[in-house]
Amino acid sequence: MRSLRLSLLTASLLLATGVAGAATTNTVIPAGAVQTATQLRDKAMADDTGYKIVESLTTEVGPRLAGSPADQRGREWAIAKFKELGFDKVYTETVTYPLWERHSEHAAIVAPFPQPLSLIALGYSAGTPKGGLTAEVVKFDSLDALKKADPASVKGKIVYIGYRMHRQKDGHDYGMGSAVRTQGPVIASKLGAAAYLLRSAGTDEHSRTPHTGVTGFTDPKDAIPAAALSNPDADQLERILGYGKPVSVKLDLDVGFNGSYTGANVIGEITGKKYPDQVVAIGGHLDSWDPGTGAIDDGAGVAIAMAAGKLIHDLPQRPDRTIRVIAFANEEMGLWGGRAYADKHAAEAGKHQLGTESDFGSGKVWRMSASVKPEARGAIEQIAKVLQPIGVAYDTKRPGGGGSDLSQMHGKGMAALSLTQDGTYYFDYHHNANDTLDKIDPRELAQNVAVYAAFSYMAAQAEGDFGSAPGAFAKDGAED
Amino acid sequence: MRSLRLSLLTASLLLATGVAGAATTNTVIPAGAVQTATQLRDKAMADDTGYKIVESLTTEVGPRLAGSPADQRGREWAIAKFKELGFDKVYTETVTYPLWERHSEHAAIVAPFPQPLSLIALGYSAGTPKGGLTAEVVKFDSLDALKKADPASVKGKIVYIGYRMHRQKDGHDYGMGSAVRTQGPVIASKLGAAAYLLRSAGTDEHSRTPHTGVTGFTDPKDAIPAAALSNPDADQLERILGYGKPVSVKLDLDVGFNGSYTGANVIGEITGKKYPDQVVAIGGHLDSWDPGTGAIDDGAGVAIAMAAGKLIHDLPQRPDRTIRVIAFANEEMGLWGGRAYADKHAAEAGKHQLGTESDFGSGKVWRMSASVKPEARGAIEQIAKVLQPIGVAYDTKRPGGGGSDLSQMHGKGMAALSLTQDGTYYFDYHHNANDTLDKIDPRELAQNVAVYAAFSYMAAQAEGDFGSAPGAFAKDGAED
Repeated sequence: MRSLRLSLLTASLLLATGVAGAATTNTVIPAGAVQTATQLRDKAMADDTGYKIVESLTTEVGPRLAGSPADQRGREWAIAKFKELGFDKVYTETVTYPLWERHSEHAAIVAPFPQPLSLIALGYSAGTPKGGLTAEVVKFDSLDALKKADPASVKGKIVYIGYRMHRQKDGHDYGMGSAVRTQGPVIASKLGAAAYLLRSAGTDEHSRTPHTGVTGFTDPKDAIPAAALSNPDADQLERILGYGKPVSVKLDLDVGFNGSYTGANVIGEITGKKYPDQVVAIGGHLDSWDPGTGAIDDGAGVAIAMAAGKLIHDLPQRPDRTIRVIAFANEEMGLWGGRAYADKHAAEAGKHQLGTESDFGSGKVWRMSASVKPEARGAIEQIAKVLQPIGVAYDTKRPGGGGSDLSQMHGKGMAALSLTQDGTYYFDYHHNANDTLDKIDPRELAQNVAVYAAFSYMAAQAEGDFGSAPGAFAKDGAED
Repeated sequence: MRSLRLSLLTASLLLATGVAGAATTNTVIPAGAVQTATQLRDKAMADDTGYKIVESLTTEVGPRLAGSPADQRGREWAIAKFKELGFDKVYTETVTYPLWERHSEHAAIVAPFPQPLSLIALGYSAGTPKGGLTAEVVKFDSLDALKKADPASVKGKIVYIGYRMHRQKDGHDYGMGSAVRTQGPVIASKLGAAAYLLRSAGTDEHSRTPHTGVTGFTDPKDAIPAAALSNPDADQLERILGYGKPVSVKLDLDVGFNGSYTGANVIGEITGKKYPDQVVAIGGHLDSWDPGTGAIDDGAGVAIAMAAGKLIHDLPQRPDRTIRVIAFANEEMGLWGGRAYADKHAAEAGKHQLGTESDFGSGKVWRMSASVKPEARGAIEQIAKVLQPIGVAYDTKRPGGGGSDLSQMHGKGMAALSLTQDGTYYFDYHHNANDTLDKIDPRELAQNVAVYAAFSYMAAQAEGDFGSAPGAFAKDGAED
């Protein structure tokens, strides 16, 4: 087994570095395809198909927590919408994952200054015992400080970490913000904490809308109650801790694991006329967190990819390769849909021409980067040239990660782009009640559709491939 | 009785127009007092007493719904704070009002697109039957349209009005916004509606934080369930109504009247050394709505008045007249504290030198107007001259209303100012969960304290009065 693996790795390295046979020919996008892509781009910029799709999803389905009744309605909506848009092939692929449910959540400071707190339980949080859980709060300044904590100082207490995110175009504070949310509860649980609280991983510093998100609990037996306070509530808790008296908090979380659930990725295809089995893979995730209606996360991504497919569908003839639009299941609680897709299609990595997913809101795409074989760099430059006039800069030094779910297929060897959106305000609304349709600027969404339609079409028409093969790009350092 | 009333009215008109005896002498503020007031103003601008007070109230007590356990803690806080600040006299005056309680509230669209709605029950709303109430929504474009509705079109339905407020410096849209909230439910009830919903009377168009506030129900027998949707939820409901299918909503409101409650106005005084029984009356209201911590409504007002009193207290000697700072009970559900104060002190209207309450947030004071006798206009101009350098314009054409609770004492004959604050963002946070300490700019709050300290001191030192007398200013058209 070992030697087989090594020889596969060697083969993929050869492919990736372009030493092997056919890869010595440069991939090129024919002039006619560039021209059509330019027209697609301009049409998309003035088109509202994407906005209408996300309006439909968020209005007719609303919040779509994975495994909830609304999750099923979301799939029905996606199937119907693909068909309504005229996709050639619409199908589902099942995805099974642990079911986690939210029923209610309440919290209050009990002492020294009794008052309610606004919070939201995190995914895979345990519930509290009936009647709630009251314990003293112990604050840590960072995840590192918690890691070094003496278990005796934590046992039976409610651990709190107040990491504060700031607004950035690339949202890089979410790296630590999400670590505090995912790793923090696991560490606290191991140290014997009764529960875990954090300042929301969100940049809306003045809003009482706590941000949920998944924890790192993978086994219900390890889970403790874990929840996020809104930023003003975190401020209030910290102010009260500042009085130097013991602060006790009561948590009443009716949430928890409840067996498993089988949902599905919903897939729509515009069938390629020349190489129908070769696919350009784009998509978004269909599930959302439940406090909002999942407009920017990730109704926008589903809409961008569906609308891009629809624009290509409306061309006089089908593209050479298939455009596959995937509405992924349960991205939020751990890339379940993306992992299921990658596992199922791993052997077909080489048939995935190029791919990337939209899952960072609806702000304009401002940067493109790619993980492709060297001989395809010229084709990527051709794509970049079409996207440059609508504000997309090509960063040659960064890898392309493929986006959240499709990062998994990239991990299996699919050549991938990163199409980075402006995330300045993304973490104001991410995973909270304010993720609603009004946060989407129809013109910015249209720019995204233009980017996806143009690149997808050019990739579908390319003469040559981008280096996809099982095991390719295994260590390209892609970030997303 | 009738002739007596007429002669009282005549007397008050004479006083108000300055024809009667002593009123022919102009009221003047001595040069020394103007100088001290100028120093007070400048000291206050650089002082954080006001901010520390509102920080203390909102942190140590938090939300203070009238009649709740926190309302009692609020009184205890106010008594202790007045004493801590060194006020000469601290006392309470009881205020009795109907007790209304909020336990929980949930709502959801049942058909055609099931999903939860963010809403908050309104003050004096009835609760729904156990298990909730489900009915079809009927939308009206305005309060006027509802008034003209055929009862048959409303009976058994949930009436909805979607009046949309916009941001303004003077917040004038709240006139209609509050009418839709107070009168709408009463009209809907009379027409036989099952319940009433409105778009929140709030300008935070992108925030899922519904705004509560009182209705016009005065008798529990007339009350129906009444609640406000957040702006994005109102958008969503209207979008769904736009599909043209019947829309049914389930309301589950555990709220309602529960007998009566006796609270109190809490009063602190800096005793005048020359005319201790003559008072300059300033204040704010101590109660707040419950979703936020009552920072801008009206912790700020309480803090501004308390801090102004404290700054005058710290002068080398007591002012000539008493500075009376009143922390009113239950302003929110119908000026209960203000009306109790005015009823109790009606006969002493003439002893109230001048007064006004702060109850429009913590934005800078930008306009002053006054309802005083003509012979006191010169003194008002002297006050205006001291306030002009910190951004306050004197509007000679508008009356002075005395603010929310003290409007009632003005109605009894107290000369009054209006000190209008910049309310551009006030209705983003008013009566909702986002009314928290972080909304207060300490420098803007300090400007308010400067205004209150300077005017109060000058009024206390004036040679002569401002025309207060029982029944004076009965019809001056004061707005607030």
